[in-house]
Amino acid sequence: MAAWSERLAGVRGVLLDISGVLHDSGEGGGVPIPGSVEALARLKRSQLKVRFCTNESQKSRGDLVGLLRHMGFDISEGEVTAPAPATCLILKERGLRPHLLIHDGIRSEFAQIDTSNPNCVVIADAGESFSYQNMNKAFQVLMELDNPVLISLGKGRYYKETSGLMLDVGAYTKALEYACGIKAEVVGKPAPGYFQSALQEMGVESHEAIMIGDDIVGDVGGAQRCGMRALQVRTGKFRSRLGGSHGPATALLLPRVPSPGCPLFSLWDA
Amino acid sequence: MAAWSERLAGVRGVLLDISGVLHDSGEGGGVPIPGSVEALARLKRSQLKVRFCTNESQKSRGDLVGLLRHMGFDISEGEVTAPAPATCLILKERGLRPHLLIHDGIRSEFAQIDTSNPNCVVIADAGESFSYQNMNKAFQVLMELDNPVLISLGKGRYYKETSGLMLDVGAYTKALEYACGIKAEVVGKPAPGYFQSALQEMGVESHEAIMIGDDIVGDVGGAQRCGMRALQVRTGKFRSRLGGSHGPATALLLPRVPSPGCPLFSLWDA
Repeated sequence: MAAWSERLAGVRGVLLDISGVLHDSGEGGGVPIPGSVEALARLKRSQLKVRFCTNESQKSRGDLVGLLRHMGFDISEGEVTAPAPATCLILKERGLRPHLLIHDGIRSEFAQIDTSNPNCVVIADAGESFSYQNMNKAFQVLMELDNPVLISLGKGRYYKETSGLMLDVGAYTKALEYACGIKAEVVGKPAPGYFQSALQEMGVESHEAIMIGDDIVGDVGGAQRCGMRALQVRTGKFRSRLGGSHGPATALLLPRVPSPGCPLFSLWDA
Repeated sequence: MAAWSERLAGVRGVLLDISGVLHDSGEGGGVPIPGSVEALARLKRSQLKVRFCTNESQKSRGDLVGLLRHMGFDISEGEVTAPAPATCLILKERGLRPHLLIHDGIRSEFAQIDTSNPNCVVIADAGESFSYQNMNKAFQVLMELDNPVLISLGKGRYYKETSGLMLDVGAYTKALEYACGIKAEVVGKPAPGYFQSALQEMGVESHEAIMIGDDIVGDVGGAQRCGMRALQVRTGKFRSRLGGSHGPATALLLPRVPSPGCPLFSLWDA
């Protein structure tokens, strides 16, 4: 592990993705990835600051943390940067009243938001709620607006559940972008502002931080573009085709990743 | 109408889009656009050759023609270029066995196609069948293939039904392209090969033909790129925002359209 100490020189903070790194989501909340509970505990005993940076948009931050604690992870709500609370801040700042195309699991996060007479659409990983009818309604709302605003909670292509790979919000955001001829605003990884808010909350500069995730685009590419170091674990959605989780179109756009390719526990089990 | 005779000089054949030009689709088959039955009859009495070039992928060619004849249109199955029969030819030529993400209304068109052990995905305007579950299944099939092939019956952004604007197959194709990092092959307008096969079936060269449709991208842009003249009617999905049915992203990519902006009947009612 000699090379590791060099790669981690000067690192004061660790940003951890959750799904695919700590656990695989799925039926009944999913399962922890073997070794990750212990790896996180060890990481927390170190001198490093730790923060969780997720694009989870099917569960409220409270529900997600409750689930992870139940699995044995040392995590609290205040340590988590999540897209729904970040979106609510933006909506309030800009006086936006959203039509919500979201999963029922995060509807509570928007309880204080005025959704009457919508002047924008917020799209999140709605899962089974991505019916044709619901997609078409969001499309029609956007087409009625003079200045259509689409806010997307992340732009992930897919994630891994215990039952297999699952389409993520990014695919549906692309569908609405194409149909309406607009570009969505992304709240979540890999948007630079989202990483920056996580770093600020952790109190660490980008060059002192490392992002650990399973998504070559959302986690690794996004963090690197913000001046952070990044590692891709070989759990979660990681697939060996083309050396990563990505398809041919995006693979060529990304820098090479200094990934050791292993589960989280082997990184912190030295 | 003096300018019209110049614009139409040398035209020997007319390609007509169907939905939004002849009728608006919708509940119970939709309704004819006022004046279009008479306009088509007059066109057919002229010296011009007429062919129908549609991206309709919710109904079989037989069902579509039956519906239009019932509305009073002078149209027969042999006069229609439609994407499902064109796709079947391609599947057979290339030994492709599709997973079908399509509307039940065109399933009969694929009755002779081997769909066992799929090595590609065919996507069409599936309407309500664009459930999350069906989209995810198509995504998973593509992700399992070493060389994923996605064939899309058209790439329309939306169309108009009597009840309002409806998301079309193109939006869902973009979703799968993004999720899988691949590029779909389009069978339908605006693919050049599709227009060319329609011209060939009509026995007219591109410079002798004019395309009439309501879609600035699929009908007008596509035909112009094939060397044809094109007109956009102001019925169907036509919307006045930005002078056409398109959003800001695509508007900039297209040439100016010499569109008179009117229903079909005023074009041929001189």
